[in-house]
Amino acid sequence: MANAETLTLADISKLVGGEVSGDVGKIVSGAAPFESAGPDDITFAGQAKFISRLEASSAGAVLVPTGVSCEGKNLVRVKNPRIAFIDVLLLFHPPSRLPKGIHPSAVIGNGFACGKEIAVGACAVVGRHVTVGDRVQIHPNAVIGDYVEVGDDVIIYPNVTILERCKIGNRVIIHAGAVIGSDGYGFESDGERYHKIPQVGIVQIDDDVEIGANNTIDRAAFEKTWIRSGVKTDNLVHIAHNVVVGENTAILGQVGISGSTTIGRNVVFAGQAGIGGHIAIGDRAIISARAGISQSVPDGAVLSGFPGIPHRLWLRVQRAVSKLPELFKQVGRLEKRMERIDPGGGPPDGLPDSTKDEG
Amino acid sequence: MANAETLTLADISKLVGGEVSGDVGKIVSGAAPFESAGPDDITFAGQAKFISRLEASSAGAVLVPTGVSCEGKNLVRVKNPRIAFIDVLLLFHPPSRLPKGIHPSAVIGNGFACGKEIAVGACAVVGRHVTVGDRVQIHPNAVIGDYVEVGDDVIIYPNVTILERCKIGNRVIIHAGAVIGSDGYGFESDGERYHKIPQVGIVQIDDDVEIGANNTIDRAAFEKTWIRSGVKTDNLVHIAHNVVVGENTAILGQVGISGSTTIGRNVVFAGQAGIGGHIAIGDRAIISARAGISQSVPDGAVLSGFPGIPHRLWLRVQRAVSKLPELFKQVGRLEKRMERIDPGGGPPDGLPDSTKDEG
Amino acid sequence: MANAETLTLADISKLVGGEVSGDVGKIVSGAAPFESAGPDDITFAGQAKFISRLEASSAGAVLVPTGVSCEGKNLVRVKNPRIAFIDVLLLFHPPSRLPKGIHPSAVIGNGFACGKEIAVGACAVVGRHVTVGDRVQIHPNAVIGDYVEVGDDVIIYPNVTILERCKIGNRVIIHAGAVIGSDGYGFESDGERYHKIPQVGIVQIDDDVEIGANNTIDRAAFEKTWIRSGVKTDNLVHIAHNVVVGENTAILGQVGISGSTTIGRNVVFAGQAGIGGHIAIGDRAIISARAGISQSVPDGAVLSGFPGIPHRLWLRVQRAVSKLPELFKQVGRLEKRMERIDPGGGPPDGLPDSTKDEG
Repeated sequence: MANAETLTLADISKLVGGEVSGDVGKIVSGAAPFESAGPDDITFAGQAKFISRLEASSAGAVLVPTGVSCEGKNLVRVKNPRIAFIDVLLLFHPPSRLPKGIHPSAVIGNGFACGKEIAVGACAVVGRHVTVGDRVQIHPNAVIGDYVEVGDDVIIYPNVTILERCKIGNRVIIHAGAVIGSDGYGFESDGERYHKIPQVGIVQIDDDVEIGANNTIDRAAFEKTWIRSGVKTDNLVHIAHNVVVGENTAILGQVGISGSTTIGRNVVFAGQAGIGGHIAIGDRAIISARAGISQSVPDGAVLSGFPGIPHRLWLRVQRAVSKLPELFKQVGRLEKRMERIDPGGGPPDGLPDSTKDEG
Repeated sequence: MANAETLTLADISKLVGGEVSGDVGKIVSGAAPFESAGPDDITFAGQAKFISRLEASSAGAVLVPTGVSCEGKNLVRVKNPRIAFIDVLLLFHPPSRLPKGIHPSAVIGNGFACGKEIAVGACAVVGRHVTVGDRVQIHPNAVIGDYVEVGDDVIIYPNVTILERCKIGNRVIIHAGAVIGSDGYGFESDGERYHKIPQVGIVQIDDDVEIGANNTIDRAAFEKTWIRSGVKTDNLVHIAHNVVVGENTAILGQVGISGSTTIGRNVVFAGQAGIGGHIAIGDRAIISARAGISQSVPDGAVLSGFPGIPHRLWLRVQRAVSKLPELFKQVGRLEKRMERIDPGGGPPDGLPDSTKDEG
Repeated sequence: MANAETLTLADISKLVGGEVSGDVGKIVSGAAPFESAGPDDITFAGQAKFISRLEASSAGAVLVPTGVSCEGKNLVRVKNPRIAFIDVLLLFHPPSRLPKGIHPSAVIGNGFACGKEIAVGACAVVGRHVTVGDRVQIHPNAVIGDYVEVGDDVIIYPNVTILERCKIGNRVIIHAGAVIGSDGYGFESDGERYHKIPQVGIVQIDDDVEIGANNTIDRAAFEKTWIRSGVKTDNLVHIAHNVVVGENTAILGQVGISGSTTIGRNVVFAGQAGIGGHIAIGDRAIISARAGISQSVPDGAVLSGFPGIPHRLWLRVQRAVSKLPELFKQVGRLEKRMERIDPGGGPPDGLPDSTKDEG
């Protein structure tokens, strides 16, 4: 691999499986967004709005979709410029790593089994009978409970807590302050006070999951709370006991998911949405920001509002709601007019003409 | 106490104060939910829907309410099967405990006074003049500030922070990442910038409280923020300065309670509710998920929505809201019809017939 | 400076630049709120409701606005009693400080550069090439990443995480459990799974900022997430990558701000508000509790609800919404009446008279 300082477009093109149009020997020394990239930077133009402005760009080179041309510009044509750009970005900004080895101030319990090239930071605490795979990084002040199992290439950031017996897959990233495996909220009321129901299950997190900062993911009452592969959560997300989150589902900031709910794959939860317990959310559903969902949702549904309704209906309803004061006046005028042309023709005051609800 | 491997129904019946119907010598080796209990497990059937399916259960034994019978099944009749099941569960899944003693890497300040059989985990930090009772467990990397007082049988999970002078009662559980005693949000604006108002009070947490993971409970400006006995909070709950939460109140995930609000006993706040400041919530009130409450609430009220309205009204309103676009059309048709039979009989265009608000 | 036990009103008056009316030799030994101040306490009366009750107060002395008199009471007249009271409060309750020096259990990386009188608590972990100014306090179990820069007089509470390369100004307070510089939520979907976009920017926090407990402030994708001077955030606030928050903006509990949004100065976000991405919020705007804002907002706007509408309209709309079931009935009655006086005059059933939306 060429050194980052001497990367040519030929090097980059090889890395991303692309084709150069322009100067293959052009040297780039950085990667930057379209708006700010300078003559020594490479950038990308994935959307039409950027492709149409290629000529005006001052970038030294641009990753573009196959088939795009621009006279006088150095282009690298690839299938997906945004994803190719990620690879280029990693060349110029290789992720920092904790120094390998176990810091002398870290505390490791009995029965620790670990792979090669692991890094355990200062004052990290690892319980008894913990297993971790190759190249795992446990950052300072993280706490790993007894009997936890961690796969390969996992990054556990500072002040993370993973409680006993939880299982973490491969290539998982857990951001700072997240709590994995706290007790689920389970109490039995005797009518006055609450009795704690022991939470004897675990949390299982599968491969390629990323958990945001200060998330809380509770252990199951029995069996497991399950975050399946490819799930990505943003910050301050709450996932209750016995929830199952399907593959490649995206959960944005401050979303809360109540207990025993099952979520399909490739679902998107936008920020601050709240999901009730004991329901099912279908594959590829989209739950809008701040939506409150208390009933099961079919595959592919796009819901907004609380209670959740189809997004397009929600948009119409919201427009209507903001005109409600006007509607009340309009109806009041109609009623006066009606009274004028049909005096006394309505039901007696205070006696509704129907006891039936509108709903 | 019999060993968990050799528990007979006679043993279990004695533990829970029940009466066996069936084989008193039947040995059970685990406890499981109704749906998944096998022939060696004991389960419970507290609700009618499970009692009606007793015959079909493959559980080795079932805790049932007094008076329930089922030919050919091993039953243990008790007053409250759900609560009896908790005791049984604890037999098979005794809670894990930190090893007794103070880990050599823990740091304990001067003037530490503690009861017997305490456990302080690795890299936990205890300030000066801290008092803790018997059997307290302070997990790794927790931080306890100066002059904090902790009762007996308290569990403080990893990465918890309890700040100076706060008081924690007996049998309190504080889950990982929670912060007790951070400064209340108190600032005085001079019209441009904010001046910090010192927060000189504390947080007092009474007996049998459970605080969820990553909660934040602020210290009072003066005197105390007070979490009274039996309160249970779920994860990511925010309780502001000078709030008082009454006995046995349940606060679900991501609820926020603003400053100086007083909450009664046995209240339930469902997930993501938000409560305004300087108000009072009556005993046994129920605040629905995502409700926003900005005015005081009487005892026993059940409120939903924002602004909060009685739950039954809210249900009717929500049904009505989703039909609003249709209502607008309906009124438009009525107006056209009116105009046809009473041409020009309305107020002049653009001049409302009344300047009075609808509200 | 006089000792707190022997403070006279003359001392206090000098401190706050005020003028005594009454006994200048009166000794006060504490500071308390108006309602609870006793004969040895000083309090303040900033609002008319307190000033009108001066005579009934049992406080030993009262800070009042210039021009206020009250026969027989000891008053200290100042320009702004609330802000003067802060200074007095600090006399009686000087903030506690970590003991100076670096605790032997703290772990400090290579290349540490620090000012004078710093305090680093037990088991705090400071990375490589970190710079901190004078009088900085890093509390126990906080983690500071490599190449972080911290100004003077900063307080970093326990279990805080500040990740690599972030920059913290002067007089910044970061409450317990907050995470500064976690990766922004940036993923590129290939239609099935997500590819992580490296987040190569930082978080920059300017002077006089206070960050609440368990906040999460993500680092920028490129360049910086920027919290400008004087910003105060409450607990559990989420600020996404590349957000800019203007000077002296107040962000209350559980607010979430999505990526790349730019916020003006002196804005107020009330609790649980949610702000969309890639928008601009004008100076001095007020965003009400639980509002959801998805479009840019001009200077000085006061918005409520979701989607956000002007607060006064929102109040009218909410009153109207709660009367909706009644409106449906009213319109139903009108329609029946119309049908009676104009039989069959409406559009055919099921065929709306217009396909045009109401909005």
